[in-house]
Amino acid sequence: MNYCSSCAAPLHLGIPEGDHLPRHICDACGTIHYQNPRVITGCLPVFEDKVLLCKRAIEPRKGYWTLPAGFMENDESTTEGAIRETMEEANAHVIISHLYTLTSIVHVNQVQMIYLAQMEKPEFAKSSESLEVRLFEESEIPWDQLAFPTIKNALNYYFNDRKTGEFPLREIILKSN
Amino acid sequence: MNYCSSCAAPLHLGIPEGDHLPRHICDACGTIHYQNPRVITGCLPVFEDKVLLCKRAIEPRKGYWTLPAGFMENDESTTEGAIRETMEEANAHVIISHLYTLTSIVHVNQVQMIYLAQMEKPEFAKSSESLEVRLFEESEIPWDQLAFPTIKNALNYYFNDRKTGEFPLREIILKSN
Repeated sequence: MNYCSSCAAPLHLGIPEGDHLPRHICDACGTIHYQNPRVITGCLPVFEDKVLLCKRAIEPRKGYWTLPAGFMENDESTTEGAIRETMEEANAHVIISHLYTLTSIVHVNQVQMIYLAQMEKPEFAKSSESLEVRLFEESEIPWDQLAFPTIKNALNYYFNDRKTGEFPLREIILKSN
Repeated sequence: MNYCSSCAAPLHLGIPEGDHLPRHICDACGTIHYQNPRVITGCLPVFEDKVLLCKRAIEPRKGYWTLPAGFMENDESTTEGAIRETMEEANAHVIISHLYTLTSIVHVNQVQMIYLAQMEKPEFAKSSESLEVRLFEESEIPWDQLAFPTIKNALNYYFNDRKTGEFPLREIILKSN
């Protein structure tokens, strides 16, 4: 961040009065440009005893398997974003159950929310974001070809929790890969 | 957002290839400037049968009572942010229990997370952000002087849930004030 997005003047890094962290400040127009973590919202879609995974068509981790998820947009809720991402990436309609994993991915300034969700029908299709979409039984999960540690965590919790039938919210803090 | 924060060239609003929403795009250097919701993280601090509230020293809603909460920063987890905000606003140390309310405040592009938290001692003090900090019994809560609807929601849920002793995660979507 070099220039003010309001007035194009050069920015400097300084601690504003009453603050405790350095921010990008514009001396010309007075705007303080804050930078904050972004939210990633998505689903763990379940149909009968299977879960839906997408093979990524875009970097990072192109060709690896993931749960449908992406950056939360302005003007939507976390659940609306999770439903939207599942439609965009997997052409699948889901009914949200509840928030299942909440991961602070500290080293990349992201908060990832994965909702447990149900598919009423086994209807899905690949998309511009997914090379392939399919349902996996537990024994078929490609554990060594999962895109991100957060996806592996969510699937591990899911198959373990399925033994008891209780799926409590799991909070995870990741500080490195 | 008028100018590119990387190179200071004027931005235009357009839909990037493969995207579906308008973004601020820099034709000069190619940067796409995304705007996403921000996370507010905080606590509902409990000591014995009382909860801790802060009277806001800053706008918006200066002079109204709130739970300690604020924007999540880069390089921290949601729980670390909740603990930090409680120390900054109320000089109180808390032990996080679990995520209690998760509110998508859609019309202002915020996601608010309030953690249920315990105070081991009744130690707190006002700060540069709080004109006054005090513990309230249920009968003392200033319901008509609460700063935000999300605060009223969290306190309502808390005092209701206290009757059963179970405090499940509450998910709320707000689309207007």
